[in-house]
Amino acid sequence: MKIAVLPGDGIGPEIIEQAVRVLNALGEPFEMETAPVGGAGYAAHGHPLPEATLKLAQQADAILFGAVGDWKYDTLERALRPEQAILGLRKALKLFANLRPAILYPELAGASTLKPEVVSGLDILIVRELTGDIYFGQPRGVRVCPDGPFKGEREGFDTMRYAESEIRRIAHVAFQAAQKRDKRLTSVDKANVLETFQFWKEIVTDVHKEYPDVALDHMYVDNAAMQLVRAPKKFDVMVTGNMFGDILSDAAAMLTGSIGMLPSASLDANNKGLYEPSHGSAPDIAGKGVANPLATILSAAMMLRYSLNRAEQANRIEAAVKQVLAQGLRTADIYEAGTTKVGTREMGDAVVQAL
Amino acid sequence: MKIAVLPGDGIGPEIIEQAVRVLNALGEPFEMETAPVGGAGYAAHGHPLPEATLKLAQQADAILFGAVGDWKYDTLERALRPEQAILGLRKALKLFANLRPAILYPELAGASTLKPEVVSGLDILIVRELTGDIYFGQPRGVRVCPDGPFKGEREGFDTMRYAESEIRRIAHVAFQAAQKRDKRLTSVDKANVLETFQFWKEIVTDVHKEYPDVALDHMYVDNAAMQLVRAPKKFDVMVTGNMFGDILSDAAAMLTGSIGMLPSASLDANNKGLYEPSHGSAPDIAGKGVANPLATILSAAMMLRYSLNRAEQANRIEAAVKQVLAQGLRTADIYEAGTTKVGTREMGDAVVQAL
Ligand SMILES: CC(C)[C@H](C(=O)O)[C@@H](O)C(=O)O
Ligand SMILES: CC(C)[C@H](C(=O)O)[C@@H](O)C(=O)O
Repeated sequence: MKIAVLPGDGIGPEIIEQAVRVLNALGEPFEMETAPVGGAGYAAHGHPLPEATLKLAQQADAILFGAVGDWKYDTLERALRPEQAILGLRKALKLFANLRPAILYPELAGASTLKPEVVSGLDILIVRELTGDIYFGQPRGVRVCPDGPFKGEREGFDTMRYAESEIRRIAHVAFQAAQKRDKRLTSVDKANVLETFQFWKEIVTDVHKEYPDVALDHMYVDNAAMQLVRAPKKFDVMVTGNMFGDILSDAAAMLTGSIGMLPSASLDANNKGLYEPSHGSAPDIAGKGVANPLATILSAAMMLRYSLNRAEQANRIEAAVKQVLAQGLRTADIYEAGTTKVGTREMGDAVVQAL
Repeated sequence: MKIAVLPGDGIGPEIIEQAVRVLNALGEPFEMETAPVGGAGYAAHGHPLPEATLKLAQQADAILFGAVGDWKYDTLERALRPEQAILGLRKALKLFANLRPAILYPELAGASTLKPEVVSGLDILIVRELTGDIYFGQPRGVRVCPDGPFKGEREGFDTMRYAESEIRRIAHVAFQAAQKRDKRLTSVDKANVLETFQFWKEIVTDVHKEYPDVALDHMYVDNAAMQLVRAPKKFDVMVTGNMFGDILSDAAAMLTGSIGMLPSASLDANNKGLYEPSHGSAPDIAGKGVANPLATILSAAMMLRYSLNRAEQANRIEAAVKQVLAQGLRTADIYEAGTTKVGTREMGDAVVQAL
């Protein structure tokens, strides 16, 4: 089993280091190979997704990804900026299914900006389509407006689009995820305005026929954003497109107040996947040894479960993380009075210990 | 001064009735004319925006709008559904500037699902562009996919677009609004992915040169959704496109927990406008006399300020609303133990009384 390890920028290398230690502690014969990505890729090879890094990712059975982005690269043209690496990997590897759990650990209920009764016990799974929609639709660009009231002016434009099979496959992922949970799926659309999402709704409704045991409902994206704030615990699984999923999954993650705890998986049709924490590269605290490695460690657990067929080992890691939380260990981002503040490495130590 | 009064569906007629009473109590020579819209328009004339209603709206100096939508009309084809009325009015009247305040009244701090320290004193203004973006962009539809990996399949598609002058005019509205407040403007985009919003960012940055007294920052929409949950009080004015504004303004409204209190204005280039509560038609409580009329009454106040040049009267209404809250009167949606629960009409009575 080969794992491509792509630490990236900012706190990426520090948090990845701890996840790698945890993986090594499992005593499995994993081969891990590291390559630069994002700003680090640009610094090393002049491109955020260097060819060798892409090749490694293609050959590996799974990818463990840190985070990309740093102010240093803010002035580069868009095609060379760190986040293009993640878009490029998603597209090249056809990672169409993004699984983003938003879970509030009971020990961390105080970290949320929401009242405890609104969020304690929160456990939502957001299934975001990741290779379609307005992220990659063509045509796009800046042109001279060809007609209408703004004819002759410059305009920026993009194309939102979903083909039937793209909607079907993400719907299957979502229904199957719901079957393993509370059997409720909310499909988020904007069918009252967008043709793309009226079509989306039609196809999701059709796929539902194959999953009669799952309760499906449809919700407009603006309402979904409201309900996430009002009563997030009412959701079980949510499925939506790339653009709406980008916004809603981040909002849902922030409801927990502990985005430093949240892993994510981006899967292709064969369950090969890229695993990364839901948080970003946090260049402001990079190199200080204070970042929370748990989201990355939990991403490694997801990798074991979905791509490497090691559910037992995934369970072990998740149990170890729960144990260190129960022991009262906290990195700065989730620290509260009465708990013990630890750094990135100490947190990694504790998880290894608990294994 | 002529006001078009469009009550619409659900609780629309009840809440509009109270706003009209409040307007009448001002002793101004307003001419008000009522017409059906939304489901009521369809029921009366077979179209959600009947021709006579549109004509009235065009001739009036301002429009007071209730709410549209009812489950009864859920099976109609999209072109005939109630919400097409609001899209049609925005487009026909060129109401490009949507102003959505998210204000938490100190008396209602408990109604929020967020912790009091996170939201008490919240006062954000969201400026949403309302006639461009993917809402109206052409081409759109369902077609056979012409090329690429899904060639030959059906696909739904839409066009996101903004012309330079559309971005300029909404940016001017937002900068000028910021000048009257805390002089801070956050432009929300997705410039890291979308051409439309890279262009948006470029133009907003250019318009900023004319407003050196306003501090401008740029934020990605996913981050904005997170920051609204994490630290909403850090925002002063936010400006964004139609689609992102739809999502963020509803999320921001829900932060207050009292969306029944929040008005909105949709203005054209000459400050003619449509005024409506931020909440919907709530068909589940329609006709029961329990709906909160204050968002509609406060929308009437916005109308007096922006379109009818009666700032003094707007202030009077706003002061009257604060007074009834201070008196402890609450409709069911904002009721808490220790306050006095009142119905729609009683709340209207109290505001008229306070005037
Ligand atoms: C960095 C950016 C392109 C990316 C996205 O928009 O998908 C990020 O926000 C994410 O959610 O992974
Ligand atoms: C009803 C719908 C078309 C509308 C919109 O998306 O603009 C509504 O959500 C709003 O925000 O006024």
